[in-house]
Amino acid sequence: MAAEGSKRTRTLGDLADLVGGRVRGDASLPIDDVAPLESAEGRHVSFFANRRYKKLLDATRAGAIILAPEDASLSDGRAILEVKNPYLAFAKVSALFHPVQAPSPGIDSHACVHPEADVDPSATVMAFAYVGRHARIGPHSVLHPGVVVMEEARVGAHCLLHVNASVRERCILGDRVILQPSAVVGSDGFGFAFDPEALSHVKVPQAGIVRIEDDVEIGACSCVDRATLGETVVGAGTKIDNLVQVAHNVRIGPLSILCGQAGVSGSTQIGAGVVLGGQVGIAGHLDIGDRAKIAAQAGVHTNVPADATWAGAPAGPHREFFRNAVAFNRLAQLVTEVRELRAAVAELQKKPATKPRRKSKP
Amino acid sequence: MAAEGSKRTRTLGDLADLVGGRVRGDASLPIDDVAPLESAEGRHVSFFANRRYKKLLDATRAGAIILAPEDASLSDGRAILEVKNPYLAFAKVSALFHPVQAPSPGIDSHACVHPEADVDPSATVMAFAYVGRHARIGPHSVLHPGVVVMEEARVGAHCLLHVNASVRERCILGDRVILQPSAVVGSDGFGFAFDPEALSHVKVPQAGIVRIEDDVEIGACSCVDRATLGETVVGAGTKIDNLVQVAHNVRIGPLSILCGQAGVSGSTQIGAGVVLGGQVGIAGHLDIGDRAKIAAQAGVHTNVPADATWAGAPAGPHREFFRNAVAFNRLAQLVTEVRELRAAVAELQKKPATKPRRKSKP
Amino acid sequence: MAAEGSKRTRTLGDLADLVGGRVRGDASLPIDDVAPLESAEGRHVSFFANRRYKKLLDATRAGAIILAPEDASLSDGRAILEVKNPYLAFAKVSALFHPVQAPSPGIDSHACVHPEADVDPSATVMAFAYVGRHARIGPHSVLHPGVVVMEEARVGAHCLLHVNASVRERCILGDRVILQPSAVVGSDGFGFAFDPEALSHVKVPQAGIVRIEDDVEIGACSCVDRATLGETVVGAGTKIDNLVQVAHNVRIGPLSILCGQAGVSGSTQIGAGVVLGGQVGIAGHLDIGDRAKIAAQAGVHTNVPADATWAGAPAGPHREFFRNAVAFNRLAQLVTEVRELRAAVAELQKKPATKPRRKSKP
Repeated sequence: MAAEGSKRTRTLGDLADLVGGRVRGDASLPIDDVAPLESAEGRHVSFFANRRYKKLLDATRAGAIILAPEDASLSDGRAILEVKNPYLAFAKVSALFHPVQAPSPGIDSHACVHPEADVDPSATVMAFAYVGRHARIGPHSVLHPGVVVMEEARVGAHCLLHVNASVRERCILGDRVILQPSAVVGSDGFGFAFDPEALSHVKVPQAGIVRIEDDVEIGACSCVDRATLGETVVGAGTKIDNLVQVAHNVRIGPLSILCGQAGVSGSTQIGAGVVLGGQVGIAGHLDIGDRAKIAAQAGVHTNVPADATWAGAPAGPHREFFRNAVAFNRLAQLVTEVRELRAAVAELQKKPATKPRRKSKP
Repeated sequence: MAAEGSKRTRTLGDLADLVGGRVRGDASLPIDDVAPLESAEGRHVSFFANRRYKKLLDATRAGAIILAPEDASLSDGRAILEVKNPYLAFAKVSALFHPVQAPSPGIDSHACVHPEADVDPSATVMAFAYVGRHARIGPHSVLHPGVVVMEEARVGAHCLLHVNASVRERCILGDRVILQPSAVVGSDGFGFAFDPEALSHVKVPQAGIVRIEDDVEIGACSCVDRATLGETVVGAGTKIDNLVQVAHNVRIGPLSILCGQAGVSGSTQIGAGVVLGGQVGIAGHLDIGDRAKIAAQAGVHTNVPADATWAGAPAGPHREFFRNAVAFNRLAQLVTEVRELRAAVAELQKKPATKPRRKSKP
Repeated sequence: MAAEGSKRTRTLGDLADLVGGRVRGDASLPIDDVAPLESAEGRHVSFFANRRYKKLLDATRAGAIILAPEDASLSDGRAILEVKNPYLAFAKVSALFHPVQAPSPGIDSHACVHPEADVDPSATVMAFAYVGRHARIGPHSVLHPGVVVMEEARVGAHCLLHVNASVRERCILGDRVILQPSAVVGSDGFGFAFDPEALSHVKVPQAGIVRIEDDVEIGACSCVDRATLGETVVGAGTKIDNLVQVAHNVRIGPLSILCGQAGVSGSTQIGAGVVLGGQVGIAGHLDIGDRAKIAAQAGVHTNVPADATWAGAPAGPHREFFRNAVAFNRLAQLVTEVRELRAAVAELQKKPATKPRRKSKP
């Protein structure tokens, strides 16, 4: 919970030390919060990284600006904090002014914790949170109202489970995992075998679990299905946005990024440092190589090599896709041209065959 | 909560007065409910606006039909309520027969309201609803079971928060806001800065809030992320369908419509009266002009001018897209034709150059 | 809840009898669980159906393998259970080793059941589950923590409602229905009529209900909207994956499959045995014929005939789509070719018109 009341004043120089940057201007300038360019005031530091917002930079009343050396010349006489990675610096400075406030530890009288659950005394279990039999909640973890952790599930240390998030039976969360509101970990995988005699889709037991490694964040209303057998895995440091679907037996490597409304079908393996754009769909049983980047809304039906950037549906290399997409925008025109060409060629073909060239004899 | 038991009989004339329409037939006809064409009976008024359903109109046993003047001739001798905007008239008539039933005010003994929260005495807080410290619930608002309103959040007057909906800390709901079940307001925006030294995605604090203006409705399992700094805003009278993603720092103008599973990326501004079709994706940092309409599944990567109708991915003007999409459906054929043309042209090129025309001399 | 502690040893012969298969090898081999090829040990039976995983088959230490007769030769000397439909056999064998464990019946002291609700004594209502006035919970049904069943809703026999799932007022669930976590049944349909005088989107009352027939499963965070009037229907035995949107007045036939993140717009009728791939979007007021298959990410804007396989957006017959999609991948090249052809034809056209062939007269 980032809250407004938690600010302490620092100097611009303090902030530069924190982020390994350099002050141009008055290093003793007092700063007591970060603020967006458009609403910042003199005691605020703001942040500039996208030249689309140059006008906001020109108009801002911020006391100081965090920006990259190559953008330093864009700012007028104002104090600046020059740093190689302004976004990272901004993250660190903002975290300084908006520390996560730990609620008081303990189990609320309106919570329900099974007598055989194991909740660390430093953990917080808020009203209407439920912890099942033999479930384990690690040190300093926080369960907000409506959170459900079913039997034999394990939540590591320093986890934050926002309202109405749920972890079904036997699933495992590492340390420092964050679940946004109504995120679901451990729902049944979507597995049915059609029985032609009984005329029914027979449910395949989803007897496996989900294992979420350390430092993962899972977005609001995102769903990670438990494995049919074995484990669905989300690797350490991977971040998943809202409304994302991760199907059973998917394995996602560390440090990947899945943007909003992306979907990954069953048994697909996603490497390390992969980025899936918004609304991307990945078919099942595929391998997506390390550091592959898949553009928004792409539909991936084949393996993707490491370091590739893909787009389109069916997806392929990004550059070709955009070249073809540009061509698509004059496709109707192209059809017309081809029709005209056919007519012209037909006309040419009608012409009499000319005789082989020879000396004309008088 | 619309319920079956709330009907009172009116005459068709009463209904015409309510909606500013004109009766053709017996204005004293008693009507005690609205019903679909296929199941309506003599004491029901039904509604016709889509000629696709002409057969249902022919077969209906409804006592009366609401329809537009231009469709009046489609109905036989039956009583009709002729009105310029039949769908709007239907909405008003249906609301008459299905009034929202306010539950009794008060805080259920199974609810949990922080002693320092401020719940209006006319509000209703049902079992297992949670209201945090310094949160405020306005007059006549209703929190259904499992609803969570975190600390310092504000819910206006006459709001209806359906089961398991949540509003995170400090977020603001105006008056007459409706949250469908499991809607999420105020989840963290998806912001991470990669730290190449620590080899981790560092979380950018999402210290801002969400502000939902008056008369907004947000669908089931839809998510509106809080701003990194400042506010994510949903403008007055805007309606959001189910499973929609609204990212951090998005600003949506008044009276817009976002259909199911649409997604809007961070910092994009959406104007007034905009319509996003189902599964539309909008990239970040864009401006979508007032009254723009984006067709279902479009992928928008550039600004959209006001009043434009766009489609496709990457999206562009709707008419061109559909012309090109039609052409796409014979693209394989086009490839064949071009191959044939190449062969024909090559053949023509092989022919000897003919001489300039001149009088043939014998 | 499938749990690890529930295993009993069987012989491979027992399993063959259960699934109507044939043992090749030692029928007395003791088996006490199913396991994936990669982690199976000697007392496990594993399952092989996808030749993509042939290497795992070669390396597995499983005591026995379930596979189809045509794959029998792929396995070495190991015991095999040969059966026509290995996936169905696997489902049955896995269910044997992972029976659903019924929790003890009764209403938890932390649950909230309206005194006028009707909960069968064999049903289970766990902590923080809510059952409203005149709601009915049938025999052996289980409501997990955070489940909400609003007033006058009906849940049949042997249903399983996972954590934080909800059923709004008056909606109906048949027997053996499963709701995954945070699934929503009965949210308001998305219906508004624009009132140009009041400048507002007037809410059309969503006075109907949802009827979920027997043996339906609905995925995590999936939403089925209640009808404007009448019923939204999900037919018997249909299975819906996670994050799927089913709009108001949709009618889905029996035994259909809706994969993750698919969306169906209002009043569309989906037949029996239809399959919608992941992220498919279907426009409103359409008919999708029995057994139609719609490929992932397709956008359907017209009726689809029975037994058709469609793909693309706008969608059409699958084979044409893929032929055209292949052509799309060389579209930029095609544009270049057409430009060259135009130049070549223009060059040819510049040549003098030759005379019609005739006998040359001296």
